[in-house]
Amino acid sequence: MTDLSRFDVTRYAAAAQSIIDAGRLLYGQGWSPATSSNYSARIDAEHLAITVSGRHKGRLRQEDVMVVDLDGNPVQSHCRSSAETLLHTVVYRQLPTVGAVLHTHSVKATVLSRLIPAGQALTLQGYELQKAFPGYDSHDCSLDIPVFDNTQEIPALAAETEAWLARNPGQPGYLIRGHGLYTWGDTMDDCLRHVEAFEFLLECELEMMRVLR
Amino acid sequence: MTDLSRFDVTRYAAAAQSIIDAGRLLYGQGWSPATSSNYSARIDAEHLAITVSGRHKGRLRQEDVMVVDLDGNPVQSHCRSSAETLLHTVVYRQLPTVGAVLHTHSVKATVLSRLIPAGQALTLQGYELQKAFPGYDSHDCSLDIPVFDNTQEIPALAAETEAWLARNPGQPGYLIRGHGLYTWGDTMDDCLRHVEAFEFLLECELEMMRVLR
Amino acid sequence: MTDLSRFDVTRYAAAAQSIIDAGRLLYGQGWSPATSSNYSARIDAEHLAITVSGRHKGRLRQEDVMVVDLDGNPVQSHCRSSAETLLHTVVYRQLPTVGAVLHTHSVKATVLSRLIPAGQALTLQGYELQKAFPGYDSHDCSLDIPVFDNTQEIPALAAETEAWLARNPGQPGYLIRGHGLYTWGDTMDDCLRHVEAFEFLLECELEMMRVLR
Amino acid sequence: MTDLSRFDVTRYAAAAQSIIDAGRLLYGQGWSPATSSNYSARIDAEHLAITVSGRHKGRLRQEDVMVVDLDGNPVQSHCRSSAETLLHTVVYRQLPTVGAVLHTHSVKATVLSRLIPAGQALTLQGYELQKAFPGYDSHDCSLDIPVFDNTQEIPALAAETEAWLARNPGQPGYLIRGHGLYTWGDTMDDCLRHVEAFEFLLECELEMMRVLR
Repeated sequence: MTDLSRFDVTRYAAAAQSIIDAGRLLYGQGWSPATSSNYSARIDAEHLAITVSGRHKGRLRQEDVMVVDLDGNPVQSHCRSSAETLLHTVVYRQLPTVGAVLHTHSVKATVLSRLIPAGQALTLQGYELQKAFPGYDSHDCSLDIPVFDNTQEIPALAAETEAWLARNPGQPGYLIRGHGLYTWGDTMDDCLRHVEAFEFLLECELEMMRVLR
Repeated sequence: MTDLSRFDVTRYAAAAQSIIDAGRLLYGQGWSPATSSNYSARIDAEHLAITVSGRHKGRLRQEDVMVVDLDGNPVQSHCRSSAETLLHTVVYRQLPTVGAVLHTHSVKATVLSRLIPAGQALTLQGYELQKAFPGYDSHDCSLDIPVFDNTQEIPALAAETEAWLARNPGQPGYLIRGHGLYTWGDTMDDCLRHVEAFEFLLECELEMMRVLR
Repeated sequence: MTDLSRFDVTRYAAAAQSIIDAGRLLYGQGWSPATSSNYSARIDAEHLAITVSGRHKGRLRQEDVMVVDLDGNPVQSHCRSSAETLLHTVVYRQLPTVGAVLHTHSVKATVLSRLIPAGQALTLQGYELQKAFPGYDSHDCSLDIPVFDNTQEIPALAAETEAWLARNPGQPGYLIRGHGLYTWGDTMDDCLRHVEAFEFLLECELEMMRVLR
Repeated sequence: MTDLSRFDVTRYAAAAQSIIDAGRLLYGQGWSPATSSNYSARIDAEHLAITVSGRHKGRLRQEDVMVVDLDGNPVQSHCRSSAETLLHTVVYRQLPTVGAVLHTHSVKATVLSRLIPAGQALTLQGYELQKAFPGYDSHDCSLDIPVFDNTQEIPALAAETEAWLARNPGQPGYLIRGHGLYTWGDTMDDCLRHVEAFEFLLECELEMMRVLR
C-alpha cells in the first residue's frame, strides 16, 4: 500500500512553474485582477498543485503554490489553499486525463454571466473558434456553457458541478454568475488555449449584445 | 515634545519608491493619463509622502515625491504638492491604520460617475470581486460608493469627505463626478488591489449599462 | 525542365522569419488567439512558406513553418499545413506580385462579419485610413469588402474566393463570417499594414453600430 | 542677411529624436496605425523637423525625419514630407511659442468626428481632465473642439485651420472628420500630454454616447 501523502517533488516544482507562468499571462490580460482567480495543475493520480489563497496572480512564486490531495486536503503544507479548491478537485476526479484547471475572472465573463437569464445556458454557435475545444470540429456545432449561480457554499457548488460533469464529460468549461470561468485541459498549454478561446467567444457574445439589444 | 518637522528619511525613501512603482503600474493601465492623479503613502503618524503637482505619473522619480504633514503643509520642501493634498490627509487622519491613498483617473470612473444621477450612490452587488475589500466576505453584500460633485474648492470637498468617512469608516473608496476614484489601504499593495477591484467593478457596471440601456 | 520540388532554403528561412515576427505582433494584438489564424509568405514563383496547423501564433519557431507548392501540397515536409492552405494558394496564383498573405481572427472581424446581412458586403467610405490600401487615394473612395459564408469545405470556399479575385484583382481583402479576415500585400510589411488598417476600420464600423443602432 | 536654408544640425537631431520617441509611444497606444499620422517639432524660428511621408510610426529612425521651412518646402532633403505638412506649418506660423505638433489617428477620434453633425463642434464640459490644457483651470470651463470636414485638398484645409487659429489662438487642438486629431504644445512633452488628454476625453464622450443613445 502506497503512502498517499507522498508525491514527486520535481513534478510538484514543474506543475508550480506552469502555474506561475500561466498567472503572468492571465494577469497580464486583465483576467485575474485584485488577487482573484485560482489555478491548479496535476502532479499525479492523487495530488495537484494549486495556488495558495489570496496571492497576486501576476507575480506568483513557488511559495505561492501548494499541494492538495483529490479531496482538497493540504499535503506537506501549513498554507490554506484557495477557497474554491473543491471546484478543482471535482474536475480531476471526474476527468482522469485532465492535467490543468484554470479559474479566471474577467469583466466579460462576469458581465455576460449576469446578463444570461437564470437557468439558461450560454449557447455558442457559428464561431470558427469553437474548434479550439477538443471534439468540436465545426463552427456549426452548438456549445452550451452552463451558468451556475454564485454562492459562498463551495461544497454545494462542487456537488452541482460534479453532477453536471458526470452528465457532460466532453464539455470544456462553465461559468459562475458574477464570478468567472472554469476551464480545463490535458496540459497547461491546452488549458490556456481554452481560456483564450472562451474569453474571445464571451467578448464576441457581449459585443453582439451591445449592438443588437 | 517631538519636533513635528522631522521624519525618518529612510522611511520617506521607501514610501516614495512605493509611489513610483504604483505610478508605473497605474499609468501603464491608462488610469493616470496626462499628469492627472495623485498618490501618497504614510511615513509615520505625522507625515506622508505625496506626489508633487503636475508630474508624469508613469515616470516618477524620487524628486517627484515630497513630504507633507497631516494638515497638508510641505515639510523640508520648496515644492508644491498636489492640489488635492487635503483629500489625502483627511483619510490618514480619520483612519489610523491606512498606509496608502491612491487617486486615479480612468475613463470608466469618469464616465460612470457622470451617468449616476446627482445625490445617488453607485451600488455594487452580486460581484464575487467585492470580496477584494476588507470586511466584504460575500458577493451578496451591498457596497454603496458615494459620488461627490466635482469642485475646484478642495477644502470644501475635503470637509465633505471627512464627514462621510466619520460616518462610514469601513468603506473602501469614493468617486468624484467627472474626475475619478479615491481609495486606500493598510499597505500600498492593499491599496493597489483596491484600485484594481474598483476599476474592474466600474467597468462591469458600465458594460451592463451599455447593454441594458 | 526545373525540379518543382526544389526551393532556395535561404529564401525559405527568410520567409519563415517574417512569418514568426508577424505572429508575435498579431498575437500580441489579440488578433490570433488560441492557435487560430494562419500566415504565409512567398518563397518563389512555385513555393510558399506557411504555418503548420494548430501552432501557437505568438511563439512560432522555424519548425512551425513549412513549405507548400501553389497547389497546397507539402514540399520536403512530413507536417500538415493549415487546413485553409488553399485560401492562401489561390491568392498567390491569382496575384503574381503578392508576397505575403495573413489570415487573422479578431473579435471585431468575427462579430462584424456576423452582423452584416447575408449576401451583403461591408462598405467602407469616408475614412482617411482607406488610403492605407494601394489604389485608394481618397477617403471618398468606396471600398466593398465581401463577407463569405463560413464552411469547413475549404476547396469550395477556395473556388469562391478565386472567382471573386478574378473579378476584383485590386481589392485588398475579404471576411469570412464568424471566422476572420484574409488580406495580402507585395511584402510582409505591406500585408501587416493592411491588417492594421482593416482592424482599425472594422473597429470604427462596429463602434458606429454600437452608438447608432 | 541670414541664409534661411541653414539650421543647427544638433537641434535637428534632438527634434528628430523627440519625434521618434513620440512615435513609439503613440503607435504603442494604437493611435497611429498602418503608417498613418505625422509628427513635427520646431528646430528654430524658420525650420521644423517632420516625418517623411508613409513611414511606420512605431519604428521611426532619424532617416524618417526631414526638415522643412515654415512654407513646407524641404530643406537639405530629397525626401517627400507628409502630405499634410501645411497643417503643421500653419500652427508654427500662428503660434510662435509652439514647439511640437502631433497628428494622430485613433479609432475614437475617427468615429466621434463622424458622429458629430456637420458644422457642429465637440463641446467638452465637466471633465476634470480639461485642466490638462493651458488656460483651462476648471472642469466647468467649456471647451469647443471644431471638426473640419476631411479633404484631400490640403492647402484649402490649411487655410481654414489658419483662419480658425487666428480667431482662437488659445485652443489646444481640432479634429478632421473620419481622419483624426491635431494638437500642439510648447514642448513635445506638453504636446504628448495634450494627445493623452484628448484621447481620454474623446473616449469619455464616445462612451457616454454608447450608453445614452
